[in-house]
Amino acid sequence: MSAAPSKTAPGWTLARRTTLMNPSVIREILKVTERPGIISFAGGLPASETFAIEAFREACDAVLRNHGQAALQYAASEGFGPLREAVAAGLPWHPSPDQVLITSGSQQGLDLVAKVLIDADSPVLVEQPTYLGALMAFAPMEPQVHTVPCDADGVLPQALAEQASALRQAGKPARFAYLLPNFQNPTGRTLGVERRAQIAQVAQQHGLPLIEDNPYGDLWFDAPPPAPLAQHVPDGVIYLGSFSKILAPGLRLGFMVVPKALFPKLLQAKQAADLHTSGFSQRVAQHVLASGVQDQQVPRIRDLYRQRRDTMAQALQRYGAPLGVQWQVPTGGMFLWCRLPQPLSALHMLPQAVDAGVAYVPGAPFYVGQADDATLRLNFTNATPEQIEHGVALLCGVVKEALASSAQSPVSRTAA
Amino acid sequence: MSAAPSKTAPGWTLARRTTLMNPSVIREILKVTERPGIISFAGGLPASETFAIEAFREACDAVLRNHGQAALQYAASEGFGPLREAVAAGLPWHPSPDQVLITSGSQQGLDLVAKVLIDADSPVLVEQPTYLGALMAFAPMEPQVHTVPCDADGVLPQALAEQASALRQAGKPARFAYLLPNFQNPTGRTLGVERRAQIAQVAQQHGLPLIEDNPYGDLWFDAPPPAPLAQHVPDGVIYLGSFSKILAPGLRLGFMVVPKALFPKLLQAKQAADLHTSGFSQRVAQHVLASGVQDQQVPRIRDLYRQRRDTMAQALQRYGAPLGVQWQVPTGGMFLWCRLPQPLSALHMLPQAVDAGVAYVPGAPFYVGQADDATLRLNFTNATPEQIEHGVALLCGVVKEALASSAQSPVSRTAA
Repeated sequence: MSAAPSKTAPGWTLARRTTLMNPSVIREILKVTERPGIISFAGGLPASETFAIEAFREACDAVLRNHGQAALQYAASEGFGPLREAVAAGLPWHPSPDQVLITSGSQQGLDLVAKVLIDADSPVLVEQPTYLGALMAFAPMEPQVHTVPCDADGVLPQALAEQASALRQAGKPARFAYLLPNFQNPTGRTLGVERRAQIAQVAQQHGLPLIEDNPYGDLWFDAPPPAPLAQHVPDGVIYLGSFSKILAPGLRLGFMVVPKALFPKLLQAKQAADLHTSGFSQRVAQHVLASGVQDQQVPRIRDLYRQRRDTMAQALQRYGAPLGVQWQVPTGGMFLWCRLPQPLSALHMLPQAVDAGVAYVPGAPFYVGQADDATLRLNFTNATPEQIEHGVALLCGVVKEALASSAQSPVSRTAA
Repeated sequence: MSAAPSKTAPGWTLARRTTLMNPSVIREILKVTERPGIISFAGGLPASETFAIEAFREACDAVLRNHGQAALQYAASEGFGPLREAVAAGLPWHPSPDQVLITSGSQQGLDLVAKVLIDADSPVLVEQPTYLGALMAFAPMEPQVHTVPCDADGVLPQALAEQASALRQAGKPARFAYLLPNFQNPTGRTLGVERRAQIAQVAQQHGLPLIEDNPYGDLWFDAPPPAPLAQHVPDGVIYLGSFSKILAPGLRLGFMVVPKALFPKLLQAKQAADLHTSGFSQRVAQHVLASGVQDQQVPRIRDLYRQRRDTMAQALQRYGAPLGVQWQVPTGGMFLWCRLPQPLSALHMLPQAVDAGVAYVPGAPFYVGQADDATLRLNFTNATPEQIEHGVALLCGVVKEALASSAQSPVSRTAA
């Protein structure tokens, strides 16, 4: 029992794909910014005061009382039947519950999509910028990532058509285009009705599969977003959804809705990945959803987030506009996208901001290839209005200082 | 909003690796055998009457009362600190909590190992037969799977050394050997003290990394199993553990203990796979573990399973031995491995067994390459002693009939 630990160098060899894996830049930034006293707009956390904790307590109690043995036992890889039915019933294009695969957060849906659809060097299309976590999930399968030009309203259908067509003509059709139509992470932008119809048409004409990621769709502030792309081309879309934003992220529960022809392979990938998602969590979530508590809670979340977005936009207007800071006001979601005035770099300014007591995520990591490093992402859901007001004032103070020192030494941007 | 669904064939293309993904043979068999009235030895389920449901209720209540917001929020990818500490403290080679990565079941550990260590066509070594779920987790990364000869006590160290050496000399060293030292699935066999020391020596001499999978180690019946391989070569082993067998599988909680040099890449793979494992489940599990209820519960589970193993072995002695059925009595775990008398095939006999009201898993799917198709796996943890006695009697009745009909038509085995 007292074997001496080995002193020899072990023969570990890492797979080639690990060179494509990197620490999440955001998680690294979050570590720095988690020190007390910092007002952080860096994370992507929902407001934890909105979690229906009492409903969860009741649900846990009921599930364990009435179905304890089943809830704690191994379960079906597809997911818990009543939860799959609830998901299907809540979607406007009426997929079958058989098409719903419950995942360990919608992040797992991206991992499964990558495994099942990406070969090394096969092209995939993404928005520019796009969700960093998707790039991280796709990277291990070694795709060629091509970006599609976007404007303030999202991906440009004509550009998407041209890229899809060019790749097809080159004999390497894109495996899919990955799109976040609602309140995109990081930009907050939303695809309009007309553009969705055009994108659906492009998908059909060019045989371009779509991965539609919709973690934020329920967090609309003024009016629900337009119908999902999956409603236009149900067989041409894998749709990813999440319970993280309206129930709680700590359960790690998401789902994917999969065209029937693809379902078996995604299910096999799911089995191999973790056998199944926690049956206990699924039953608890289903119980909370069935209780109807979210019918009151979700409108409250929307009100809260709308108020915070407004506070942030007003503070930017007051403190940032005079300095030349630009931003886009999102109509839902969790993020507000900013651009610093020339010649500032959001990446290089971050340490000064943290010193001043405010944190954000620079926009650069969300870009593939050439980044607009004046951009930054501000989260407005996990800070109080007072913190938002104060944090934006602090941030704009840093911008003012940085502008002043760049005026004194105009080479600072390249030198930094 | 009323977009007509597409009629055109969508352009989905599956990744090459999907040809290596297959439905779990066991899950397919389980579906057939889940019809009422069947005595099933086919699954790998713990006895759900052993779940400490009351302790879980208390834990859920306490976690939600005292830490509800934190438990339901996003959390660290590494896992919940106190749970990592509890895991590290419970392991005999005293790893640092920093080396513990909490996973969504130990199955996820296999998926992460595959992503981080397997390139297409890189060799990996496995026991013959081995855990089917590991083969399923490795397959998408397209390894060359080499089997190592085993006997009733597990892998043969000399054979392991020869294979490792041959692969190294051929310029393609094995990325790892995957071993289940305790109460192996499917055979129930356990590596002895001496053989572990020899395997550790082989690993050191040949620079052969080991993946040590230990889901069943706590389920010993007579004496604890020998020290883990990780105690011999801590830097040369990734160790996988599970809470599924002593707490409950429905939480999907496992862990891996990773040499420090490898930890960052496995953490990055974990982030990309599902961000993190449910923080709520982790806190609940930590609370149940800290309550000490398992100190009483685990010995009860051992007693229960020992009794069931004994019942099964005695029933096989009574009904099977006269027919030439052979089996190995495991000293722990959940499975008993049998061999049918010549010329029977466990795969071909299964439909007759199901008709008679008893189910098992044929051994063939656990083999890589040439299978011993007389073998079958019997689970003894999820049936009462009465069911076990009756089920074995039924099974042996089927064996007797099959032997009789094969004597009448001696070509039946090849014809079947």
